[in-house]
Amino acid sequence: MQLTETRLTESHRPTLDQALEAIRTRAYWSPHPEHPKAYGESAPADGLAAFEALRSTRFELDQPGTDGWTGGEVSPYGIELGIEYPHADPEVLLPAMRAGTAAWREAGPKLRALVCLEILARISARTHEFAQAVMHTSGQAFMMAFQAGGPHAQDRGLEAVAHAYAEQTRVPEAADWSKPQGKRDPLKLRKSFTAAGRGVALVIGCNTFPTWNGYPGLFASLATGNPVLVKPHPRAVLPLALTVRTAREVLAEAGFDPNLVCLAAERPGEGIAKALALRPEIKIIDYTGSTAFGEWLEANARQAQVYTEKAGVNTVVIDSTDDYRGMLSNLAFSLSLYSGQMCTTPQNLLIPRDGIATEAGPVPYDRVVADLAAAVGGLLGDDSRANALLGALVNPEVRSRLEGASELGEVALSSREIANPEFPDAVVRTPVIVKLDGGKADPDAVYLSECFGPVSFAVVVDSTAGALELLRRTIRDKGAMTVGAYTTSPEVERAVEEVCLEESAQLSLNLTGGVYVNQTAAFSDFHGSGGNPAANAALCDGAFVAGRFRVIEVRRQA
Amino acid sequence: MQLTETRLTESHRPTLDQALEAIRTRAYWSPHPEHPKAYGESAPADGLAAFEALRSTRFELDQPGTDGWTGGEVSPYGIELGIEYPHADPEVLLPAMRAGTAAWREAGPKLRALVCLEILARISARTHEFAQAVMHTSGQAFMMAFQAGGPHAQDRGLEAVAHAYAEQTRVPEAADWSKPQGKRDPLKLRKSFTAAGRGVALVIGCNTFPTWNGYPGLFASLATGNPVLVKPHPRAVLPLALTVRTAREVLAEAGFDPNLVCLAAERPGEGIAKALALRPEIKIIDYTGSTAFGEWLEANARQAQVYTEKAGVNTVVIDSTDDYRGMLSNLAFSLSLYSGQMCTTPQNLLIPRDGIATEAGPVPYDRVVADLAAAVGGLLGDDSRANALLGALVNPEVRSRLEGASELGEVALSSREIANPEFPDAVVRTPVIVKLDGGKADPDAVYLSECFGPVSFAVVVDSTAGALELLRRTIRDKGAMTVGAYTTSPEVERAVEEVCLEESAQLSLNLTGGVYVNQTAAFSDFHGSGGNPAANAALCDGAFVAGRFRVIEVRRQA
Repeated sequence: MQLTETRLTESHRPTLDQALEAIRTRAYWSPHPEHPKAYGESAPADGLAAFEALRSTRFELDQPGTDGWTGGEVSPYGIELGIEYPHADPEVLLPAMRAGTAAWREAGPKLRALVCLEILARISARTHEFAQAVMHTSGQAFMMAFQAGGPHAQDRGLEAVAHAYAEQTRVPEAADWSKPQGKRDPLKLRKSFTAAGRGVALVIGCNTFPTWNGYPGLFASLATGNPVLVKPHPRAVLPLALTVRTAREVLAEAGFDPNLVCLAAERPGEGIAKALALRPEIKIIDYTGSTAFGEWLEANARQAQVYTEKAGVNTVVIDSTDDYRGMLSNLAFSLSLYSGQMCTTPQNLLIPRDGIATEAGPVPYDRVVADLAAAVGGLLGDDSRANALLGALVNPEVRSRLEGASELGEVALSSREIANPEFPDAVVRTPVIVKLDGGKADPDAVYLSECFGPVSFAVVVDSTAGALELLRRTIRDKGAMTVGAYTTSPEVERAVEEVCLEESAQLSLNLTGGVYVNQTAAFSDFHGSGGNPAANAALCDGAFVAGRFRVIEVRRQA
Repeated sequence: MQLTETRLTESHRPTLDQALEAIRTRAYWSPHPEHPKAYGESAPADGLAAFEALRSTRFELDQPGTDGWTGGEVSPYGIELGIEYPHADPEVLLPAMRAGTAAWREAGPKLRALVCLEILARISARTHEFAQAVMHTSGQAFMMAFQAGGPHAQDRGLEAVAHAYAEQTRVPEAADWSKPQGKRDPLKLRKSFTAAGRGVALVIGCNTFPTWNGYPGLFASLATGNPVLVKPHPRAVLPLALTVRTAREVLAEAGFDPNLVCLAAERPGEGIAKALALRPEIKIIDYTGSTAFGEWLEANARQAQVYTEKAGVNTVVIDSTDDYRGMLSNLAFSLSLYSGQMCTTPQNLLIPRDGIATEAGPVPYDRVVADLAAAVGGLLGDDSRANALLGALVNPEVRSRLEGASELGEVALSSREIANPEFPDAVVRTPVIVKLDGGKADPDAVYLSECFGPVSFAVVVDSTAGALELLRRTIRDKGAMTVGAYTTSPEVERAVEEVCLEESAQLSLNLTGGVYVNQTAAFSDFHGSGGNPAANAALCDGAFVAGRFRVIEVRRQA
């Protein structure tokens, strides 16, 4: 193993050091290029070919306890992937996953981190293949699948490794303790401290961002000494299956048990997440998905540390702006990106009844909504550009939600069907904007439920103060992954900050350029706060990693 | 407030720096003297007088919502304290406690830490008074009440403040983020990061160590920006009431709302902990006490972060030793200290049927038990020394458990009644040692339940391997705050370490001198692991503080 250690150490130590520096300064940093061309001339074609070669095959993993094969992914772009994955018997698989734990623990935090970085480096080298896999499971447009499913996901995985390493090394490996006893000899102890994982970690993947939302938990758990069982969403298996295969290869090459990372693909309708989540071997769970199942996990998987990202209702408060066009185009992009199928997409735009102040004078509510509708319409007016921004609707539920939106209120912007010449069966739709009245404090109001997909509500409120009160109530009762606000008033700015500080939500102020409220950058931005109902954890902070291991002390008389 | 800040900063900053260094190196350190004489010539008499002056009075706190007075503490040494505490209406008190949150958040991590250090410094100056209060509520002997209830508790509080400060300052207050965009201008954001408390924290105190077990949660929550409501055990109100009063004084002097720290004393039989724990305002709970209520809190107080220290079954594995006398006297002290009423006191001593190897040859099981009994008998042979070590039984339940112990098996050492000349009504008893057979894997075995108090079981096992298997099962099923082992065999040492690493328990090896398995030192030793059923948190690590606040980011276009 010595050679392997040396090679890993030499190649990845500077990256780990830079990641540690980045999470401390929170300045911009990434080792994973965002531009498709950065991966070499032949990389796009190679990635596509690698993806095509996977189709209609069995995805071999050589895991213990394989008792059959299962699959059935259909791309939101209309093609069947036809890939079959091993189905595992947990009675065999889970004990086998624990066999390598002792050696993985003994490797220590640094070697574990460097092995994780090698896994990420190999994933990075295949980013074009992952882009195809993410595109054809999530329905993201290619460029987004490439960036969010590739470098951005890898960044979030690396960020988790850096946090895990930092957390485990806050305590020294050993300490000499000597307590003075006046004239007598001091009391002396020799102490050792070992970071020990808690048990098998379960990652429950989601449909829309299988790698981006899956990597933080996966790498945080692995880097803190835990075997990781990855249970992908049945419609988005491939990106995580590729991840698991890569991890197993690297672990084996580094001299560790490849069963430290395994896949749990499920048969149609099997719903294995519930059964796995309650297994006594499972000590950590990372989950992204519906509020109902997230809350079930928090309430029932009591033997495990449970980290959830559920649903929230994201709000943008529009009070005033000195860049009206910039605001409109920024919001239009936010509402359109991936057809609003991001947990961070704004849903409710709160606009005072009397309108907003702008650099060109006041603009009434109706005008703001009409201008925003026009901005979205303009952004998506060209079908080619629309396809590149919107991607495809991820599943039929999103489509029916979109189709029902026009009954919820006055439609300010209708949804439009877009043809995708490359994938004629893809369901591509522009967002709908519905006008609603937020003046009454109605707890059953339509806008207080998450309407996941390309549906936004332009909610008229009596005043900015009313908007802030509604914002507070929405975060407190429904949760929020993001909050946005536009204001030129220092008082309003201070007030919206207070709401976010008190109700625990991440705030973006006056974005009018090329950064959007629904995008966060690893190493710098927190994704969620962990302090409101939308999520019980933030990506990524000390709390996200500190509970994944325990420090075990052995003290001996010296 | 500027003057106050300066004074606080000047006086306590070096202490904070030293505490931060100590939790990093885990070498011996404490700013709180252990020796009673270190507090000045008149301090013992002054402390006693201050305690006496409190008796039979109303303990004024000037809290909002006081709707009556309650009390009724009776010292385990037989005297009635006669002190009445304010009883609070939570409908009034809890909203009032939140009023000062914004200013406390704005103070920032450093000023909050320094204010906490001033509170601890004022408590330290009154250590003799606290020693009386702890002695006459817990039943600890004076010297133990002085040390564990005074400097050691203050150390644990300071340790929590240091961890809280370190955790909150891992993220900078602000960052400039600039992302290159090739030939275009970089994307620029100005970001601010603020540590924000979660809401009102509830500390549920225990009877035996009101300050030592109460301070970590109290100071961790306060230092991370949360108001703290202290609900003492009804038999141990005074030490925490004094703490609350001191905290309120310091907060007010530093320009903050004193209602950031309040007391919730309860009427006899009122059981307010349950109702408070479920209040929506309560976002953090620290609890030390029975497993049943701890598990109830974990399952039901879902709106809060819940940190529990419950009951465990502590084991010492005796395989072999090269200092037989040292081992016996070390164990005798561990079993006797505070009449075994520590959550860290060994309960089960696992000894192979064929006996153990020593520097003077093999010693059979019966002989080991007899020699240990003789060692305890010798240690406690002198009544004055016995009183100084044992203290008093904390409550009638411990006494009846002790009295019933002789029916559980063959008694190797009977309990003896000791007269306390100073406090004739104190119930003072030496420990009992009962011989039990651990050879059968009986899940209902007597030794697998916690028998809190001066009762230990000398459990005979078939072999050291059998002892390790029983140790593993005990930690996994019942939990353990401490594990001890005696062995001269490197293989056995490695094997017991493996069990502790895998089952998450803190291990003391071959203690034969002046350090005991049931004692841990702040800044260096972890109290509990947080990874087995005895406790879901360790004192003190990153996980203990990281969930008590959230980092809220505000980002603005730059």
